[in-house]
Amino acid sequence: MADPVVRSAGSGTHPPPDDADGRPSRRAVMFEKNRLEAFSDGVLAIAVTLLALDLHSPAAVPRGLARALGAQWPSYAAYAVSFLVIGIIWLNHHAMFRDVRTVDRPVLFINLALLGVVSAIPFPTRLLAEYLREGEAGRIAAAVYGATMLAMSICFVLLWIALARQQARQMHRRLDARQAFAVIRRFGLGLVVYTVAIGVAFISAYLALALHGALALYYSFDQLRT
Amino acid sequence: MADPVVRSAGSGTHPPPDDADGRPSRRAVMFEKNRLEAFSDGVLAIAVTLLALDLHSPAAVPRGLARALGAQWPSYAAYAVSFLVIGIIWLNHHAMFRDVRTVDRPVLFINLALLGVVSAIPFPTRLLAEYLREGEAGRIAAAVYGATMLAMSICFVLLWIALARQQARQMHRRLDARQAFAVIRRFGLGLVVYTVAIGVAFISAYLALALHGALALYYSFDQLRT
Amino acid sequence: MADPVVRSAGSGTHPPPDDADGRPSRRAVMFEKNRLEAFSDGVLAIAVTLLALDLHSPAAVPRGLARALGAQWPSYAAYAVSFLVIGIIWLNHHAMFRDVRTVDRPVLFINLALLGVVSAIPFPTRLLAEYLREGEAGRIAAAVYGATMLAMSICFVLLWIALARQQARQMHRRLDARQAFAVIRRFGLGLVVYTVAIGVAFISAYLALALHGALALYYSFDQLRT
Amino acid sequence: MADPVVRSAGSGTHPPPDDADGRPSRRAVMFEKNRLEAFSDGVLAIAVTLLALDLHSPAAVPRGLARALGAQWPSYAAYAVSFLVIGIIWLNHHAMFRDVRTVDRPVLFINLALLGVVSAIPFPTRLLAEYLREGEAGRIAAAVYGATMLAMSICFVLLWIALARQQARQMHRRLDARQAFAVIRRFGLGLVVYTVAIGVAFISAYLALALHGALALYYSFDQLRT
Repeated sequence: MADPVVRSAGSGTHPPPDDADGRPSRRAVMFEKNRLEAFSDGVLAIAVTLLALDLHSPAAVPRGLARALGAQWPSYAAYAVSFLVIGIIWLNHHAMFRDVRTVDRPVLFINLALLGVVSAIPFPTRLLAEYLREGEAGRIAAAVYGATMLAMSICFVLLWIALARQQARQMHRRLDARQAFAVIRRFGLGLVVYTVAIGVAFISAYLALALHGALALYYSFDQLRT
Repeated sequence: MADPVVRSAGSGTHPPPDDADGRPSRRAVMFEKNRLEAFSDGVLAIAVTLLALDLHSPAAVPRGLARALGAQWPSYAAYAVSFLVIGIIWLNHHAMFRDVRTVDRPVLFINLALLGVVSAIPFPTRLLAEYLREGEAGRIAAAVYGATMLAMSICFVLLWIALARQQARQMHRRLDARQAFAVIRRFGLGLVVYTVAIGVAFISAYLALALHGALALYYSFDQLRT
Repeated sequence: MADPVVRSAGSGTHPPPDDADGRPSRRAVMFEKNRLEAFSDGVLAIAVTLLALDLHSPAAVPRGLARALGAQWPSYAAYAVSFLVIGIIWLNHHAMFRDVRTVDRPVLFINLALLGVVSAIPFPTRLLAEYLREGEAGRIAAAVYGATMLAMSICFVLLWIALARQQARQMHRRLDARQAFAVIRRFGLGLVVYTVAIGVAFISAYLALALHGALALYYSFDQLRT
Repeated sequence: MADPVVRSAGSGTHPPPDDADGRPSRRAVMFEKNRLEAFSDGVLAIAVTLLALDLHSPAAVPRGLARALGAQWPSYAAYAVSFLVIGIIWLNHHAMFRDVRTVDRPVLFINLALLGVVSAIPFPTRLLAEYLREGEAGRIAAAVYGATMLAMSICFVLLWIALARQQARQMHRRLDARQAFAVIRRFGLGLVVYTVAIGVAFISAYLALALHGALALYYSFDQLRT
């Protein structure tokens, strides 16, 4: 009796093509990547669009709307930087899964963790927008923002490793030193830079926001170059 | 005269492949699963992302932003648990429909009911975040949270049954005892555990939240194991 | 010189298969239905999920959270009815486009109009939730709710007609009386019933809400029957 | 050793079909358009649906709900115009990518910029809804609205150019004068008109809103005509 629902928990109709040695403990259940991409695109699109909900209409305009709008510049700056950051995440995510056809459970889970951080990004963004100009509070807000970016960066490294391991397993081999080095070169720098940005936050919230903007722009042009 | 729109209400171009006996009363209208998955992914992605809208910027920081942020820990805990819960729902939903190609109307309807519960999850989440520390109100909030999880769990059992029945019908047989037992083993435990969690809520809201977090983590690792 | 971007405005690589008579004025530009479905699924999923944003955490609970939550019952009732309504819209939309492969511009536009009404549904819903119990204001809120449903219903009739006309044109024939009758039978009743519901609103807001709930349930079971 | 993840950064399994001269500096990494469309559909669907969040339930109704609702007409007008605008953007985006199969990085980036403007549209919309009737503030709000539309229009021109350049490169030729002229004719008018609308805003906010509505309607019927 073949029942797809019961079966789907234990085996798969889409086994990794290279893994046909019949040992069940080695056979991971694989999933088509399309729903992972659809769910990720959904969360990224919503997170990016919710950012604009924090672009408030000024409550009162005693000295004119133009001035009131100008006084909200930290909101626009935080919106622009966070939009760019989530946009770059989407581009990297897109590039990372472009040549992948199926994913295993660890990849699904780490991807969920990444999305958990991404969907939280509007929170530090509004924190930074509200407290940027308020001295100590602004520096803490910038540090929280930087910590969120660091968490996002860590999830990306873990996702890269999970994808690389999955593909190595599909080809019956282990991750080698060259691959590990490629991880360090491509993503490790991000970890260092975001850690530095947390430190910079305690010097100046403005400088930290500018650094995050510069990083996002750098990654954009770096992407365009490759 | 073949008119697809009129026809689409009464018959289907995608009949269940095994159901070719020609008796119209037995032929259910089948739908490609892709829009069910797209709509479900959309609702799940939005519900999960809207959770972060309740991570508010502290209104006033008389004793510093760090303290004000720390005082909001129930919001972060509720966010984390609900994110994990919706993430697991997505994973289970993904696994459940992985090997399904078409769905009938009962599956579409029960799936809608499941999505109705899921899209409501931000409500008990913000309730729990706001009242967790307020004694009696916190316990009631935790019970409402638990009741929502129980409702979600019941929808999942019903969805499983509807999918199993649909597949049995496609193969011209009825659900047998072994399948019913598999349902009980896989999902029945969830019903019991979420009922217990409602009871636990009346003892301690903190304990109930911790229990929901532990359950979500358990299901995560359980998923990874299978 | 073949330039797809310039070309895409004037002709199509996906002409209607039956329309090969070469007369350019008769050749409508056709679009694959997949983006229409994706965009519609997105708007419907978001509208349905935003409904839950109006399930507010009670601001004060002088007589206990349970009572405060109980006093919010109009919010839950309005949420449930609107969720069901949007769910049924999704099911009907799904069924309507199931056997369609390409769509022309009029279909795209009328579909946009339908989505415009659907994405506005959270507004009359929160209006009804807030004013249901307030006599005259409640009756007006219920009438606005009913008018929104009527507008939605009209868009559905127009969408049906546009789809039927598109298909008739693809087969080189005009809409005939039998088809027009099918439209009246299937959707015309909805127009009448929603008009009645607007009238009922001026008698009792409660009755009108109950009527909308009953209608949504009726259409659900009607869908299950066919 | 072929590792898709590492490889995906540098080369592609989907090279432009016409670009097979083997010179790596000429080979752009191409991406399937489906995720660009999915992400764009997501952002457009969310932006359009979030507009309705600014249709507030009147806080107090001293002279009846009907009057209070009537007094909110700028919100409905702004909602209707912005919905129409985003709807037309979606239609144009759909038409623009209809016959495209793969996209390169510049297209992805300019598309992100377009989405950044689109997801910000709810902000000038609520600004205009709130200040339309308040003299000077209304005129500034209308100018901000017009500036947003101009930015959107510029992104569309850039996106068109990026797509045309990508396609020219795939066919080993450069953009020629005829194409450049087509750009000017099709989109350049929009740039002029939206610039005029910014000027009109300083004369009358009402006139500017009406102009934006008329433009959206004009583009709708223009789309239907072609």
